[in-house]
Amino acid sequence: MTKAIISLSGGMDSATVLAEAINQGRACMGVGFCYGSKHNQYENAMAQKLADYYNTPYQLLNLEGVMKGFKSNLMLEGGDIPEGHYEDESMSKTVVPARNIIFISILAGVAWSNNADEVWLGIHSGDHAIYPDCRPKFAEVMGNAILEGTDRMVDLQYPFLYWDKARILTRGIELRVPYKLTRTCYQNQEKACGKCGSCCERLEAFSMNGIEDPIKYEE
Amino acid sequence: MTKAIISLSGGMDSATVLAEAINQGRACMGVGFCYGSKHNQYENAMAQKLADYYNTPYQLLNLEGVMKGFKSNLMLEGGDIPEGHYEDESMSKTVVPARNIIFISILAGVAWSNNADEVWLGIHSGDHAIYPDCRPKFAEVMGNAILEGTDRMVDLQYPFLYWDKARILTRGIELRVPYKLTRTCYQNQEKACGKCGSCCERLEAFSMNGIEDPIKYEE
Repeated sequence: MTKAIISLSGGMDSATVLAEAINQGRACMGVGFCYGSKHNQYENAMAQKLADYYNTPYQLLNLEGVMKGFKSNLMLEGGDIPEGHYEDESMSKTVVPARNIIFISILAGVAWSNNADEVWLGIHSGDHAIYPDCRPKFAEVMGNAILEGTDRMVDLQYPFLYWDKARILTRGIELRVPYKLTRTCYQNQEKACGKCGSCCERLEAFSMNGIEDPIKYEE
Repeated sequence: MTKAIISLSGGMDSATVLAEAINQGRACMGVGFCYGSKHNQYENAMAQKLADYYNTPYQLLNLEGVMKGFKSNLMLEGGDIPEGHYEDESMSKTVVPARNIIFISILAGVAWSNNADEVWLGIHSGDHAIYPDCRPKFAEVMGNAILEGTDRMVDLQYPFLYWDKARILTRGIELRVPYKLTRTCYQNQEKACGKCGSCCERLEAFSMNGIEDPIKYEE
């Protein structure tokens, strides 16, 4: 049975990745990161709930010390989270330097140490405009780097690389993903704000699929 | 002035990299990692001394929690350090899964966050046989991945990629590197053992350069 490490953030993309990997017969283990972002505590709690729902082992790794000096409005010490559309220029303030590169590298080490064959990630087309380490060209060369650096033991999988969030949601609905157990908002608060780029993209995806988002939003 | 982040382990290769980067006019910052290896505490102490000697800022980042489950005889929880030549098959027990991939990724994030242009690493030809994430092909594709993932802001530099340790030492002697302030042994003890693959490679390099190693070894 192919073993897969799933990058499980607690968001709806990675939730759908986990469901897809299980659907494709992988033995999964979820791994998340605590890196000092404003929304970390809320999303990681959801990742744990989702892993429990799927009866999947889940491990939370702490990078708060390592990434403490990293500059981004997404971080606890950074400026305000911008409002507006997810692909707007203003959203570039939410880029965390090399975040995805770092996550992928550690996940490759975790995969190797656990005799897993694959690392699955939920990066998608909505990420391409703003986040350089989510673009197809990066995904391709990083996949090569991980193959070379692990002696061809670990293979990166990006099932939704060219999909937008609405299409991911369509697939997730087919797979009966419990989206109530996901968290997308970038703000440092329990309830989703409904205004940050991340909330906007999520609400748009639900709207395009003609269904209501099961999580609660601020009035 | 070009700013460079130097991967500074406390060993003689990275010490020479720092000297070379300074010699080539870079404004340097050293970064090391504490990741739970047997020799970490000894090598990191040397990295700090070497950084002080060169009046270079130095930062130690802690990955002990993240890499706790990583399987390798180099780690505190792993088996015995093998003796023999550095390129022997037995040395594969000292491979730490994805270690260099992880270090490079984090150093790229540190570089980006500090407006540095480059990350310099001391990987060399002696590493190629055993460590997949030190080979030229990996170095090339990882360099591409870092360029793509940082929006072409961070460039990896491997000044000694095709050199052996003896040639690095020859260069370091020209640059007057204080090798007394370096540490190479893989064992969990203050004094170098002189028998592990890492010690053997170092002693061979000094012997080939016809000079005595200034550090102390066990009888």
